[in-house]
Amino acid sequence: MTTPRPRRSPRTQHEAQVLELLRVQGSASRAQIAAETGLSRATVSAIAANLRRSGLVVRSDVTVTGTGVGRTPERLALNPGSRVIVGVEFSHTRVTVVVSDVTHRVLGSKVREHGGDEPWERRLATAVRFIDALVVNPASLIAVGMGVPGAISGRTAVVARVERHLAERYGVPVRVENNARLAGLAEFSWGAGRDMPDLVYLRLSEGVGGLLIVDDEPRLGASGSAGEFGHVCIDPNGPLCRCANRGCLEAYVGLGTLLPLVGAASVGDLVDALDRADPRAQAVINAAGARIGLVLANTCRILDVSSVVLGGPLAQAGDHLVRAVRQAILRHLHHDGAERLRLRTAELGDLDGALGGVALVLRDRTIAIGRRSTSTTAPREKAPTA
Amino acid sequence: MTTPRPRRSPRTQHEAQVLELLRVQGSASRAQIAAETGLSRATVSAIAANLRRSGLVVRSDVTVTGTGVGRTPERLALNPGSRVIVGVEFSHTRVTVVVSDVTHRVLGSKVREHGGDEPWERRLATAVRFIDALVVNPASLIAVGMGVPGAISGRTAVVARVERHLAERYGVPVRVENNARLAGLAEFSWGAGRDMPDLVYLRLSEGVGGLLIVDDEPRLGASGSAGEFGHVCIDPNGPLCRCANRGCLEAYVGLGTLLPLVGAASVGDLVDALDRADPRAQAVINAAGARIGLVLANTCRILDVSSVVLGGPLAQAGDHLVRAVRQAILRHLHHDGAERLRLRTAELGDLDGALGGVALVLRDRTIAIGRRSTSTTAPREKAPTA
Repeated sequence: MTTPRPRRSPRTQHEAQVLELLRVQGSASRAQIAAETGLSRATVSAIAANLRRSGLVVRSDVTVTGTGVGRTPERLALNPGSRVIVGVEFSHTRVTVVVSDVTHRVLGSKVREHGGDEPWERRLATAVRFIDALVVNPASLIAVGMGVPGAISGRTAVVARVERHLAERYGVPVRVENNARLAGLAEFSWGAGRDMPDLVYLRLSEGVGGLLIVDDEPRLGASGSAGEFGHVCIDPNGPLCRCANRGCLEAYVGLGTLLPLVGAASVGDLVDALDRADPRAQAVINAAGARIGLVLANTCRILDVSSVVLGGPLAQAGDHLVRAVRQAILRHLHHDGAERLRLRTAELGDLDGALGGVALVLRDRTIAIGRRSTSTTAPREKAPTA
Repeated sequence: MTTPRPRRSPRTQHEAQVLELLRVQGSASRAQIAAETGLSRATVSAIAANLRRSGLVVRSDVTVTGTGVGRTPERLALNPGSRVIVGVEFSHTRVTVVVSDVTHRVLGSKVREHGGDEPWERRLATAVRFIDALVVNPASLIAVGMGVPGAISGRTAVVARVERHLAERYGVPVRVENNARLAGLAEFSWGAGRDMPDLVYLRLSEGVGGLLIVDDEPRLGASGSAGEFGHVCIDPNGPLCRCANRGCLEAYVGLGTLLPLVGAASVGDLVDALDRADPRAQAVINAAGARIGLVLANTCRILDVSSVVLGGPLAQAGDHLVRAVRQAILRHLHHDGAERLRLRTAELGDLDGALGGVALVLRDRTIAIGRRSTSTTAPREKAPTA
């Protein structure tokens, strides 16, 4: 999700190292900065003094999103007053916008549900309305990180149009990723997957997708399509999937398949039924958990990951789901490390995908946070085509 | 397969960087060394001059194992006259020993087939006899890399005993890994997987195992058991596997299952039957290919790898196997990148596992190649307990 950093003078490189560390971590002490960058304490102190004079960095005990309060008054952070980042998620049925400062603090968010057939022009207009309402000073906007369903490598013309429209309207870089991956990136950055150096994140929604973290890095794959857990085939003779293959995990456990099986209109209904021990709901969640567990067990055989985070709406089923998934993993892996596997549900709720858009920007070393990038001066050329 | 390098003075660090590059690559020009280490040309020249004075490094146009002739007389390599490395593979039915110099040139090899019930004492005695015959000057031995079947994290007492015996007899470090992984490491270093930065290597033998390469690095997993492709479950109600699970890939395509289906005593018999278009042999290889292809397609969904190498005895079926595997991958992935996937058979033949032992030592930065490690002075304490 990052591209190689352009070459800079050594001094600027060291400053950039410190800024990038602060931007990825939210805040850090001088000692931590020295330890993680390999720079000497003296160099770090000199750089910190310089960055504080320029107003880019402040002393901070600010809250880091999702991790509670800061620990010591000696920490440094990027200046929260200076710049903001917008994260947008376009899911199949929702538009979500969050605005965050560069210290990872969420300044505001807005969500609108819509039907599955909502035209993209209206989705875009919703996003623009939300961004305009949330970003008080447009000149403070650094970049937009945007999540959409489907593979990014072959993204559709309409997504490219949305991306271009936002870039032109706000005069900032726009970065696009698959929305399930972004939700995983947010959980890895601030949620249930923080402190997990290797991780399978599974997003269980209408579609089933995910993100793979290996050695503390998101793995996008040779053509950018890694993490397609929803289209792992668990039975070549199974039901037809909307991807045109047979027996994909998504064809069994996507919400569009699961909810009708229990006559539930929403995941909330399903959870209610589970809470009152409805046998049909229990059978459905157990069967889903068995299939999810099979795919996770096979993933463990191949990758030997230590942690799994279950996210997306179906994760609201909480222990009902986790129990069924764990049982299946234990059955398939039994003595082979299944008991060491950490299995958690996601923590960031419905904002996860949009928060992942913020994380995408924060991790992107090609986006300058200290000053406007070259595209900043582009005029607002078009109004949204609502 | 490497552990963190101990801290050294900057000068020694730079020398070590150059030595490690030469040891992993076999040989390199000064320009390549500068480009890959990030050191200046002047520094590289100074280091090279120093290393040549010490006799550790020589000018070289030597052949690099598996990659043909050297390209320019200006290349540097480790001094082949100085030190040797032993690779040993203990498979279920064979002991293989190779001896290589530090420029990756194979100096000799020996193989002995045995029954599946051969006691470990006899296997060890065979290995010792081979090493004694192949290593003319025991003082020149740097280390032994050894492959054994099964998971290394929970390796058996007998394997630990073999490891200790070799370490004591030769007074050198002994490194142990799963033999299928080592075969993959050899293919990645010198065979069909060279130049492939991400790779699934599958070893199709009595057992089915493999190695995963991501971003040019072998991935061992959180508990060291990644790459267990043989125990990916393809049908929870399938046949019992020797690992006590059901429907593992190995339970379908392990040689112990496949060969009896066609009445073949060996893979050679199976290949003969395929070459004369025997319908039963074709049906068996097609069914095996379909299952191997399913596991590989699912691996691609999760990891999006660009290359697959099929190794082990069953890979002798060559195009018969590759065709069936490719067909299955295309069926499961169709429009999603299947045509970009490179699918090859292994190149290194029966020495692959033992060569992987050499590669394991060459990649291990904790093993000094310039001088004997601290354990060198240990006397030969025991004769092999044959």
